Amino acid sequence: MKAYNVAVVGATGAVGNEMISILEQRDFPINELRLLASERSAGEKLSFQGHNVTVQQLTEHSFEDIDIGLFSAGASVSKTFAPHAVNAGAVVIDNTSAFRMEPDIPLVVPEVNPHAVERQRGIISNPNCSTIQMVVALKPLHDAARIQRVVVSTYQSVSGTGRKAILELETQTRHIFNQKDILCQVYPHQIAFNCLPHIDGFMENGHTREEIKMVKETKKIMEDDRIRVSATTVRVPVFYGHSESVNIETEKKLTAQEAKALLMRAPGVRVVDDPSRNLYPLAIEAAGEDDVFVGRIREDDSIENGLNMWIVADNLRKGAALNAIQIAELLIQRGLI
Amino acid sequence: MKAYNVAVVGATGAVGNEMISILEQRDFPINELRLLASERSAGEKLSFQGHNVTVQQLTEHSFEDIDIGLFSAGASVSKTFAPHAVNAGAVVIDNTSAFRMEPDIPLVVPEVNPHAVERQRGIISNPNCSTIQMVVALKPLHDAARIQRVVVSTYQSVSGTGRKAILELETQTRHIFNQKDILCQVYPHQIAFNCLPHIDGFMENGHTREEIKMVKETKKIMEDDRIRVSATTVRVPVFYGHSESVNIETEKKLTAQEAKALLMRAPGVRVVDDPSRNLYPLAIEAAGEDDVFVGRIREDDSIENGLNMWIVADNLRKGAALNAIQIAELLIQRGLI
Repeated sequence: MKAYNVAVVGATGAVGNEMISILEQRDFPINELRLLASERSAGEKLSFQGHNVTVQQLTEHSFEDIDIGLFSAGASVSKTFAPHAVNAGAVVIDNTSAFRMEPDIPLVVPEVNPHAVERQRGIISNPNCSTIQMVVALKPLHDAARIQRVVVSTYQSVSGTGRKAILELETQTRHIFNQKDILCQVYPHQIAFNCLPHIDGFMENGHTREEIKMVKETKKIMEDDRIRVSATTVRVPVFYGHSESVNIETEKKLTAQEAKALLMRAPGVRVVDDPSRNLYPLAIEAAGEDDVFVGRIREDDSIENGLNMWIVADNLRKGAALNAIQIAELLIQRGLI
Repeated sequence: MKAYNVAVVGATGAVGNEMISILEQRDFPINELRLLASERSAGEKLSFQGHNVTVQQLTEHSFEDIDIGLFSAGASVSKTFAPHAVNAGAVVIDNTSAFRMEPDIPLVVPEVNPHAVERQRGIISNPNCSTIQMVVALKPLHDAARIQRVVVSTYQSVSGTGRKAILELETQTRHIFNQKDILCQVYPHQIAFNCLPHIDGFMENGHTREEIKMVKETKKIMEDDRIRVSATTVRVPVFYGHSESVNIETEKKLTAQEAKALLMRAPGVRVVDDPSRNLYPLAIEAAGEDDVFVGRIREDDSIENGLNMWIVADNLRKGAALNAIQIAELLIQRGLI
């Protein structure tokens, strides 16, 4: 079996760490693992398959002999360095927003639009975490009944922002309990015991960029511009796991039972939905898991063909690192690499 | 000025405590304040206007000479004891779900349907916390453009469940930080650093009672059965203050600017909406305040006449104790007591 040279760009970040774990857990066929990060982190050692791998400083020459570049170090790093990786012959799977909406660049969730990888010409984008988990759950319902409109409100964990945000929630919580003043360095307001209706920057129309990502990326991944999406994205004091309250309107009627049956056989979905035993998806239970969890599936009587559901996934895994590595696996399966 | 004999039923609970504070803060015209609770709490002393008041055990004879009974000790206590209070000549303002949907009993939010108090025949119901803050914000928009449909997802604080839930969030958080096992006594799952899509019991159609309260109470308070509501109610690890992501569809087009202008002059509403300065309503800032805070007001392009907004209020104050006392003040202003 062929083995590949894989570079992880942003190796010391929350998603980079998760990528390394997942490559190991899934026995990804690796010849060389090259860990790349900024100058500040170069020299750190990270464990992979029982060995220490030294993090190297990312430069334009970092990609010699690399087959697959997994990028997760921010959009500006991707914009600067992904072209160097492609020129060196690598396929880049980019976890940032840098190229997602470029028409020529596939935006892929393997359970939803695996065929889109065929169009790749060096760069494949990994969607936003909130979008990935939503479309995995919506795809089987869209195929069966055509989704016309989605109204989604998110409950996003701090790990989506990165390692510093995880520390900020922890530190603020400790300080509140110890009656010390709290500092807000990552978020503009206290996140401990609070909810912030603000993820990514604000646009002129009052929406955040995160909200617009959910609108646009959903259409692109589902390959259907007729799906209308309204999103409100909210940061909550949870460490790992994004939850979403999703309301959909379909063209054809789907009962809750029909939707549940479709979701139970959908790839990458685990239905957890037994209210009589207080079973529904929970962020703390999704953390560390690969699946997208769906529950609270019920009919919304406020419209003719309405459904509500609660969708939860590990934002660092399915929402980022796992999805990227699944794309790499798809490239291998299809002989594209 | 006439002064009244006021009984607080459930005086030692989270809402009862808040009622006592608010009666004091608003200089409510009180002759005698009678604090009532279960046998377990009888004998406790609570401070009011610089004096200690001893909590008495609630019995059917507790209401002699009482003018106003403020009930907040659970629906079964209200069902048993509110009739005794009414028979003794008191007007009951009931904060539980016991009588809310009875057609003869007014369900009142003073900013929305103050006239409904005129119909009272001994009992007036105070709506559910999540509903109150939502209708205060929706009323001016409904009057201007008729709301046809509401899709709401809530972010509700643990204080809505009561004192034991506040302690549970605190204790679980400490135990997680100290690597001790956590106990779930109030909620079926860990609430610290987690979100529970489960408030009140589940019904056969998969909705929770809390969700159905938002659907039914909204129509009753707004006095318009044509308003369709879809609700998902979620408990989040916040101590005080409920937040709500609200999407509305109106018959007439309202721009975000028009909606903001209407809300800025609406009673009981404070607009906090300046994304360029990271200003939007926050649970931690609403805590201790009387107003309903509205922000993130923006047009939803997924439908023709759509608006999104973020509505936050102190669930113990406007969502419970304050609204009840405003109802009492309304009864006095209108000479109904």
